[in-house]
Amino acid sequence: MRVAVLGVGLIGGSIGLAVKRRLAADVAGFDVSSSVLDRAAELGAIDQKCDSVVEAAAGAEVVFCSAPVGELPELARSALGASSEDAVVTDVGSTKRDLVAGLDARTGGERFIGGHPLAGTEASGIDGARADLFEGARWYLTPTETTNGVLYDKLQRAIADLGARPQAIDAVTHDRVMATVSHLPHVLANALVSQAADTLSEESERLPTVGPSFRDVTRVAGSSPAIWGDILAANRESVVSAVERIVERLTNSLELLREGSADEIAAWHGWAGDARRRLLEADHVGGPLHHLQVSVENRPGTVAEIALALGSAGVNIEDMTLSPATDMRTGSISLWIAGAEESERGAEVVRDLGYAVTLVDGSG
Amino acid sequence: MRVAVLGVGLIGGSIGLAVKRRLAADVAGFDVSSSVLDRAAELGAIDQKCDSVVEAAAGAEVVFCSAPVGELPELARSALGASSEDAVVTDVGSTKRDLVAGLDARTGGERFIGGHPLAGTEASGIDGARADLFEGARWYLTPTETTNGVLYDKLQRAIADLGARPQAIDAVTHDRVMATVSHLPHVLANALVSQAADTLSEESERLPTVGPSFRDVTRVAGSSPAIWGDILAANRESVVSAVERIVERLTNSLELLREGSADEIAAWHGWAGDARRRLLEADHVGGPLHHLQVSVENRPGTVAEIALALGSAGVNIEDMTLSPATDMRTGSISLWIAGAEESERGAEVVRDLGYAVTLVDGSG
Repeated sequence: MRVAVLGVGLIGGSIGLAVKRRLAADVAGFDVSSSVLDRAAELGAIDQKCDSVVEAAAGAEVVFCSAPVGELPELARSALGASSEDAVVTDVGSTKRDLVAGLDARTGGERFIGGHPLAGTEASGIDGARADLFEGARWYLTPTETTNGVLYDKLQRAIADLGARPQAIDAVTHDRVMATVSHLPHVLANALVSQAADTLSEESERLPTVGPSFRDVTRVAGSSPAIWGDILAANRESVVSAVERIVERLTNSLELLREGSADEIAAWHGWAGDARRRLLEADHVGGPLHHLQVSVENRPGTVAEIALALGSAGVNIEDMTLSPATDMRTGSISLWIAGAEESERGAEVVRDLGYAVTLVDGSG
Repeated sequence: MRVAVLGVGLIGGSIGLAVKRRLAADVAGFDVSSSVLDRAAELGAIDQKCDSVVEAAAGAEVVFCSAPVGELPELARSALGASSEDAVVTDVGSTKRDLVAGLDARTGGERFIGGHPLAGTEASGIDGARADLFEGARWYLTPTETTNGVLYDKLQRAIADLGARPQAIDAVTHDRVMATVSHLPHVLANALVSQAADTLSEESERLPTVGPSFRDVTRVAGSSPAIWGDILAANRESVVSAVERIVERLTNSLELLREGSADEIAAWHGWAGDARRRLLEADHVGGPLHHLQVSVENRPGTVAEIALALGSAGVNIEDMTLSPATDMRTGSISLWIAGAEESERGAEVVRDLGYAVTLVDGSG
């Protein structure tokens, strides 16, 4: 297999390293900076240094676009133009809606599937790249109703093979949710830093030590300005709405803070702690794999529909195969889901979509 | 020396352990819970289990009130009533204004000095107590113009001996600054958790993995509800004002988020990162100690005035002595300040108050 990585910084370089270690595939690399490309080759993240997108994408089965969010639309279009009809093209950007909406059937959009790995980004650049960066990490994929099911299957399998956990999510929902759980924290951190700086200068205090809560809450303030400028601009609409909503929420909390007793405020605080634990613990599902067989008509959008419905219900697909393949009128999709309860719930979700589902016993 | 600790939970117990290890003083302990008191004795945090505030405070030179914020006014008054005329009474609560304002001359207020150690509180209860909890930690003290200078000196020395770094700050300023750098982060974290929970349920998404920024920003959400209910209620006015200001600030940022280019948003982000670094680095002062001798009239408020002015200018007093002592008409205060530049600046601040200052060479 041949994989192309377009842009070999922290994420692209880590994809290259992980592909070489875990997929035993050849990696063709391209980067606008030739020194970055050289370094990626030195570190063993790529096998072949390419002078252009066309050269890198030619003959690749999977093409990863790993550039700043603002450059992704053009890069993805070039990659689709340069790659073959059975290649899947994906990206790793933090916002998905505009990118996915901009790639329609005329530009080969059925071969493009948006992606977003939730992987650490404290380091930056190719020198921070690590083969295990995606180990156990959630990796969102945003198939649409025109997405080619066979290519979706190929991509999600490649990502699972990299050690990550793929999950389908609708691109618009992805951006709205990310606006609250990822982009808004950055806006709040910036606002808090700026208020603290003003407060201290108004009070003519040089406050030598700020408490641990300030450090925690503001840790993300000002991280990677260029990247975050791009992300917040690309997800403008959802971010603005998330900020408007938190302003409303804070304004509402003023009543409690003004009039509430210590006990009432404590109750609010306790509720928030419980809610946070529930949010963070939602991820802990496990158990033996169960095999679901779904009878489907082989038409565009089926795989996306099923993957999105399961993703939205929080049911994680550990593995997936399509059988028989692409040119048949009807066929079946095999899904593997961890845990008995989880797979029962998955079966129900798929049945609710109108498909016949068989729960094949054991680990299939 | 004898020290009394009223309330022997995490902070009170740690004070007991630190006093015994570093001050070689006897610790008399009292707690409303006899099982907590027993445990404190078992762990070696106190030498003597007392049945009442009166029993514990009798004969103590320094009395630490270490109860929940809501119970401090009554406890401090009892401690002042039960302790001798040369005993200093202090507390460890997170808010200071109302407590300090409520203790006037009639209740022995000149012997009460508010305190607030900025020490970790992830653990709670006597079993989390540690002798080194205050090592290097900032410990705010809030003297007023009626504060007895000799007692201030005694207290700040005891706190420095515990390994902490005392700093004088006006009680009202303390509460306003804490509202922004400590209490507001908790309110923001709660609001963000509640918005995330709502967003996910509106989108019918069970989002299995939230990014690291969400974890960081919400870490303090819901920590110790009872304690934080008390704190937010006690500092109600400043917290409400801090929330109102961040609402205004976030509302203003909407214009940038709606209209700004990626570069403009990146510039804002970069500014916030720099501001945060400046805020966190303000603490790193060092160098050899310099000795400042200040000629003063021995009247109430002098020590507080000088300590507050230096604290407010961010000049840290590493050590302090009054000589000669209490009953003279005039005398001098010796201050030790780390770093040549810092001590020059300290001398200037004190001169600006109208005092004669001599910079004694070397480490005095």
